[in-house]
Amino acid sequence: MSATGAKPFFCSRWVTRPAHVSELDAGAGLPGGFRAAGVAAGLKPSGRPDVGLLVCDAARPASAVRFTSSGAAAAPVLLSRERSRLDALRAVLVNSGCANAATGRRGLEDAAKTQGAAAAAAGVDPAEVALASTGGISQFLDVDAVLKGILAARGRLAADGDADFQQAIQTTDALEKRASLAVELPSGAVRLSAQCKGAGMISPRFATMLCFVETDAAISAETCDLLLGVTVKRSFDRATVDGQLSTNDTALLMCSGASGVEVAPESEDELRFGEALDALLRQLAVMMVADGEGASRSARVIVRGGNPEGVESAARAVANSPLVKAALHGGDPNWGRIVQAVGGALPETAPLAVDVTIEGMQVCSAGAAILYDEAELDRLVQREEVEYEVGLPGEGAETEVFFSDLSQAYVEFNSAYTT
Amino acid sequence: MSATGAKPFFCSRWVTRPAHVSELDAGAGLPGGFRAAGVAAGLKPSGRPDVGLLVCDAARPASAVRFTSSGAAAAPVLLSRERSRLDALRAVLVNSGCANAATGRRGLEDAAKTQGAAAAAAGVDPAEVALASTGGISQFLDVDAVLKGILAARGRLAADGDADFQQAIQTTDALEKRASLAVELPSGAVRLSAQCKGAGMISPRFATMLCFVETDAAISAETCDLLLGVTVKRSFDRATVDGQLSTNDTALLMCSGASGVEVAPESEDELRFGEALDALLRQLAVMMVADGEGASRSARVIVRGGNPEGVESAARAVANSPLVKAALHGGDPNWGRIVQAVGGALPETAPLAVDVTIEGMQVCSAGAAILYDEAELDRLVQREEVEYEVGLPGEGAETEVFFSDLSQAYVEFNSAYTT
Repeated sequence: MSATGAKPFFCSRWVTRPAHVSELDAGAGLPGGFRAAGVAAGLKPSGRPDVGLLVCDAARPASAVRFTSSGAAAAPVLLSRERSRLDALRAVLVNSGCANAATGRRGLEDAAKTQGAAAAAAGVDPAEVALASTGGISQFLDVDAVLKGILAARGRLAADGDADFQQAIQTTDALEKRASLAVELPSGAVRLSAQCKGAGMISPRFATMLCFVETDAAISAETCDLLLGVTVKRSFDRATVDGQLSTNDTALLMCSGASGVEVAPESEDELRFGEALDALLRQLAVMMVADGEGASRSARVIVRGGNPEGVESAARAVANSPLVKAALHGGDPNWGRIVQAVGGALPETAPLAVDVTIEGMQVCSAGAAILYDEAELDRLVQREEVEYEVGLPGEGAETEVFFSDLSQAYVEFNSAYTT
Repeated sequence: MSATGAKPFFCSRWVTRPAHVSELDAGAGLPGGFRAAGVAAGLKPSGRPDVGLLVCDAARPASAVRFTSSGAAAAPVLLSRERSRLDALRAVLVNSGCANAATGRRGLEDAAKTQGAAAAAAGVDPAEVALASTGGISQFLDVDAVLKGILAARGRLAADGDADFQQAIQTTDALEKRASLAVELPSGAVRLSAQCKGAGMISPRFATMLCFVETDAAISAETCDLLLGVTVKRSFDRATVDGQLSTNDTALLMCSGASGVEVAPESEDELRFGEALDALLRQLAVMMVADGEGASRSARVIVRGGNPEGVESAARAVANSPLVKAALHGGDPNWGRIVQAVGGALPETAPLAVDVTIEGMQVCSAGAAILYDEAELDRLVQREEVEYEVGLPGEGAETEVFFSDLSQAYVEFNSAYTT
């Protein structure tokens, strides 16, 4: 079965569906204890859905959140971080069509008004509501439109409202990033679902683009935070489309406990639940990269050796190099650009004994070109997902970054669109 | 008069020709004491010139060089740095069509062979020859072709060989970056000339793309090094096309002393000569940016306030943001992307009181949008050279970066071309 049609949700070679996880139908709805809605409130000129409301009806909800680390963090991020009880959220208000970023004090006041209205609509305290926005930076929020949207959404809250909620959070996404999973834990069966958006301005650091994850497992806020922290680091934090950290990145995990299945700290349940969450977020991160604005091909670079700072710098340099990304787009092996990007990231280390392997075929050893089958390499880099491995001198460190290619379409899109 | 035709060499609003500097005709030739040649040796598939030889006939030449800081520095860089007398060079051998990078031990041996042959051709010691290469990374040098090219170039060495030499160092350059200047110093008149290439893989750090500067002033090697160091930091080091540090960047200043005019340390002559060199290199850096692969518009971002590391990070982040660059290309004001880029470069500082001014019109104050004339701003960003000013909290630091836009043509070019 599949979450989004014929193609299974777990479709990347870089993510394996754990044996105890199965995909549910796109219409399976949210886990027990959750309701959602998405409506068109007029924020998007296209008239598409742009206000989403997510409510957790549990007696004792638990939650955890990761936000962008941007110095220019948007008003909804600042307000949620300062005023919301992030470990016990009961509702989330999201809007697309306006990021409410670079809007100063007025932006904070506007956000606070919508937080209050969402709280009233959900019948909870304002501090139990988190906010998230995405869309154009530097525009003020149309508060009246959002307030109307909240009222409309309130009337449509439903257990199967996740599809509408998904529509309301999307902007430039071509691919729907939504999943409904069943997870078999030793203590019983639980559900896990996610709605996620992101295609451009993607280079999360200790955060992500908008991603909302719900489960009916009973998990303490502390465990929730731990699991989200670890899995975000291995997923959204390892993905880049254009190296651009957003002002609005938000990843949120909410637990209703409605299944009655408890995930205790350091238990086998926690391990299994963590595996499921990890696979879910990694697949969503890979989908974001594959859906990178104008992208036609995605890649993973693995860097091994050296030290943690060195492999991180080298991997990010390769993943964000417009030359490497343009070559990836053109199906051009051009591995000299990988050596160049690594060399640029590690100054004053020449001559650097770097190894490069593409799709399992080594092309460079200790900094020098070696003989390889050029025709075969030409063929290998035509794949939809291309893997680069970089070896640096030394041992003990390893990292990976997922990235998309750079296409004329990305430029077309971003030279004509006011984000 | 003009170095390159009807348009004067000093054509950017960001560089002022000093009053004591005048432009000479493109055919003025090299300063006294220099000869050069450029020939086609078959390294470029196009059959265009690809081997250049520059010789200084002075009794006591002085020189200084800056190289790329890349960990993947090419063989000619490694060899020149290790084996050449960089403060007393008598010859430079340059080739295009092959970077001789990622070529390991064989690359060094190949480079050494060409260094020896160039020394024999110029009648100097191998250690008095510097090497520079540009072209495809990961390809081995066709040594036989270069040796034949050296012999041919030797027979064509001439005082007005700078135009041919220029042809031999160019690769993807659309615009010729060459100048012949007359400089009036208190102690007398001297000449200054330069041949320079660079259009992609441009993000020098303490170095530049290939740039060869000659003067007939008598300058000590120590002063030569000081002047080159200071002026490279204010020119090539402040320019970016695609944020990609090259494996082969080289900037070289050679002094023949043939004019008999001595530039003594800490003299008025040194000050005036430095001003001329500074204007020359800054104009060349701006020309590189304007000639960025596929570029149609160039920009300068000035960041003030904060601290030196902060302004540097912020300026580089703006200059290398594909979103800012695509907006520049499209003539789209879209200043939210500038705030986003600055925020991404300065994590964990939210809310950051950033100011943004475009072409003198302030659009953002203390992190928040302000009212401005949108129609007028739309008009201002259509200029060929666009200026962004970013203010950060605090005082005492300021920097600038010149950058080009990101166009579909850049992607087309770099997805089909093996560098």
